[in-house]
Amino acid sequence: MTQSATPAYRRLSVEERRTQLLAAALSLFAHHAPEDVSLDDVAEAAGVSRPLVYRYFPGGKQQLYEAALGSAAEQLNQCFDEPNETSALSRLSRVLDRYLEFVDQHDTGFAALLQGGSVVETKRTTSIVDGVRRSAAEHIYQHMEVSEPGAPLRMTVRMWIAAVEAASLIWLDNDKQPPPAELRDWLVEQFVAVLKVTAGRDPQTAALVATLAADAPVPSA
Amino acid sequence: MTQSATPAYRRLSVEERRTQLLAAALSLFAHHAPEDVSLDDVAEAAGVSRPLVYRYFPGGKQQLYEAALGSAAEQLNQCFDEPNETSALSRLSRVLDRYLEFVDQHDTGFAALLQGGSVVETKRTTSIVDGVRRSAAEHIYQHMEVSEPGAPLRMTVRMWIAAVEAASLIWLDNDKQPPPAELRDWLVEQFVAVLKVTAGRDPQTAALVATLAADAPVPSA
Repeated sequence: MTQSATPAYRRLSVEERRTQLLAAALSLFAHHAPEDVSLDDVAEAAGVSRPLVYRYFPGGKQQLYEAALGSAAEQLNQCFDEPNETSALSRLSRVLDRYLEFVDQHDTGFAALLQGGSVVETKRTTSIVDGVRRSAAEHIYQHMEVSEPGAPLRMTVRMWIAAVEAASLIWLDNDKQPPPAELRDWLVEQFVAVLKVTAGRDPQTAALVATLAADAPVPSA
Repeated sequence: MTQSATPAYRRLSVEERRTQLLAAALSLFAHHAPEDVSLDDVAEAAGVSRPLVYRYFPGGKQQLYEAALGSAAEQLNQCFDEPNETSALSRLSRVLDRYLEFVDQHDTGFAALLQGGSVVETKRTTSIVDGVRRSAAEHIYQHMEVSEPGAPLRMTVRMWIAAVEAASLIWLDNDKQPPPAELRDWLVEQFVAVLKVTAGRDPQTAALVATLAADAPVPSA
């Protein structure tokens, strides 16, 4: 322990300390693969001792990772909220902007998490990721004002979400090219294009595509 | 060991025995989550003793799982081959037919593998799965007769492959509905639709879409 009075040693409430440790962990896990982050790194980043980290997270690195992932998932869920002021496709664009910003800010950790095979990956981490996917789909139905999506529309939305995830990973691999705004437009156009394909097979999706077209000019596929 | 002379106790060559054990393991891992398959199950399915399984696979269940996965990956890679006799989109349809048959025949194991968080999932299993994805993409470029796909086309193809994977998992969840032939046509149409979106941004993809349209009637998006 050093003698320097770091701000981290201010007397924090239990909740504040927990939040501070989580923030330190999240920022490390965002930019490093989980196997490259140690509890010592977290303690150092938070400016506290290793035993203090253990006091808050007795499950050690695995528990910290899951907690950090949970907190990242919450941030991501908040990205999906968007006031109903504009057209559905503009809302989708704005959500994608924030999503891509999240991917940009959590690049290494995001890639490690989705690429799988990590030592810290468990049924629990997988279910947090699945929760985000489900939440993304539900937000899309809300933005599209579809209250009871049928199987074809559900499948189309979930396929598009999988495609967006893949695009995010490739984007990180490609040094974040194309620029986010270009990628976002491309993804929105793909969404409209696949909806149109499904519209040929499903009346509910056909009605949705008609609404979107009336709402805002639909990019031609 | 029982007295009944099961065919499995024929004198097999080392290679034959290994193949037989792998086939037994693959058929178990295809229809059960990896955590529900034991070495005893594999021994019983192959009609041999547990020590014999260990003699061939000293790494136990993990080694058997990885070997079974490698053999499934090889089968899947073979699905992607298709003689260049018909149009590119007909070839893609036939490849998808075989792929969906594979998914159908390996349902539980396929879902467990791709849903992640399994105890047997490691960097090695992940890299086998990634190898299949890469091979699928390479086969698509070949079928489309594109020898040097640029970034936009690569991204489009890999996004579509991710969407197809997602569709396969949802299809298994939905009691394999819609029927495979319908799902296959839907997926091919989506492929053409997303290619058309990329064509608006990338001359190479635009040229490919024109070739596909000349080659066979392109379903309207």
